Amino acid sequence: MANGNKQPPKESTAKSGKTPKAVVLLSGGLDSATTLAMAGMTHDCYALSFDYGQRQKIELKHAKKIAEVMGVKEHLILRLDLALIGGSALTSDMAVPKDGVKAGIPITYVPARNTILLAHALAWAEVLEAHSIFIGVNAVDYSGYPDCRQPFLRAFEKMANLGTKAGMEGGKINIVAPLITMSKAEIIMLGTGLGVDYGLTHSCYDPVGELACGRCDACRLRLKGFDEAGLKDPIRYQS
Amino acid sequence: MANGNKQPPKESTAKSGKTPKAVVLLSGGLDSATTLAMAGMTHDCYALSFDYGQRQKIELKHAKKIAEVMGVKEHLILRLDLALIGGSALTSDMAVPKDGVKAGIPITYVPARNTILLAHALAWAEVLEAHSIFIGVNAVDYSGYPDCRQPFLRAFEKMANLGTKAGMEGGKINIVAPLITMSKAEIIMLGTGLGVDYGLTHSCYDPVGELACGRCDACRLRLKGFDEAGLKDPIRYQS
Repeated sequence: MANGNKQPPKESTAKSGKTPKAVVLLSGGLDSATTLAMAGMTHDCYALSFDYGQRQKIELKHAKKIAEVMGVKEHLILRLDLALIGGSALTSDMAVPKDGVKAGIPITYVPARNTILLAHALAWAEVLEAHSIFIGVNAVDYSGYPDCRQPFLRAFEKMANLGTKAGMEGGKINIVAPLITMSKAEIIMLGTGLGVDYGLTHSCYDPVGELACGRCDACRLRLKGFDEAGLKDPIRYQS
Repeated sequence: MANGNKQPPKESTAKSGKTPKAVVLLSGGLDSATTLAMAGMTHDCYALSFDYGQRQKIELKHAKKIAEVMGVKEHLILRLDLALIGGSALTSDMAVPKDGVKAGIPITYVPARNTILLAHALAWAEVLEAHSIFIGVNAVDYSGYPDCRQPFLRAFEKMANLGTKAGMEGGKINIVAPLITMSKAEIIMLGTGLGVDYGLTHSCYDPVGELACGRCDACRLRLKGFDEAGLKDPIRYQS
């Protein structure tokens, strides 16, 4: 059976029992859903989400639905006590800024978040004997987040291979960040091509019920991305 | 006031408001209590412990008492869902081996544990603006644990400085592992000199109530250490 661009080769390799496993960090947002679609083209996916006391618990509801619709092998949700550590508008009482995307490290930055999330993904990858961890970080839109940059990811990968049983025994853990240099519009066009239903995704830092605010950094980047892609964002916003 | 070897210089520097802060990973065991005593000589200490579904919840009771007695500034206990990830005798139903210390990676190894613990310490260090993270890992007794070795710690440090706001803005995070090359006997002698009350510490992987089993790897290493140091272990064992 021929595979078109949009058809993952997974099925055919699965029959030979050789489809590799990947742990995919899944937030419920647009980027991680696209990353899951990309990982799913070549891997059996194990989605990992976190309940870390963030304001947007609604994200988890979206993550569950995305995992289900996109046919992951397993979806694990781990609770983290990041709110006790504090230091971010996303896990504490600080106000989420809504007056436009600024330069520098935003107050929505959660200290060491990606280090913590990747550390858990690494543990699960060891148990699953998976050699790839997919993360939907993006260095273009989130240039202010130090842990969304390639040098950080390469350093994490090196550390992971020194600090795990798999690494010690010659296995190799790969941290895969397929979106890292893409614009939001490019991500949306790619995901649309892969059949991602962006109506299931959620990006807003400060939603009212199911309605996105349309004014926080995440909403602004998302709307701009759909606009530049020439597509309509299927989610609902406060008018 | 002159400071003897056993007297930390902290008080005098604290008056000038310059005592640096350190996050210290505190398990309630002998090594981490000794590490805390060492860190306390030069730093204001913020102790970090974890409730990660490990069998020995009794460790946390000991960690609390040690933190209190040793005068830490704050003691934070974070819950982790490591049991959901599985893969270790310490977080699942596998039996803890009691027939002597073996070569290789033991089944008490928790996948990526130190990566996960250090990641949280890193987040707290960022919030506290602390530049040092102390960890009581030991490469002599725990040579089978990949994440107890210096190359792993140096790689973590590098990653930490690339992935955090502090690192991005020129601050430097140091991962300090003062015990890494010491034997258990040396650690015990050092800690005794610093006034550590080892009667407050707990090492056993499989205790019965407050009584240590005396036969798991952790008990064997501890008893051998006291023996070689020519000291009596003050804790109680099953007879």
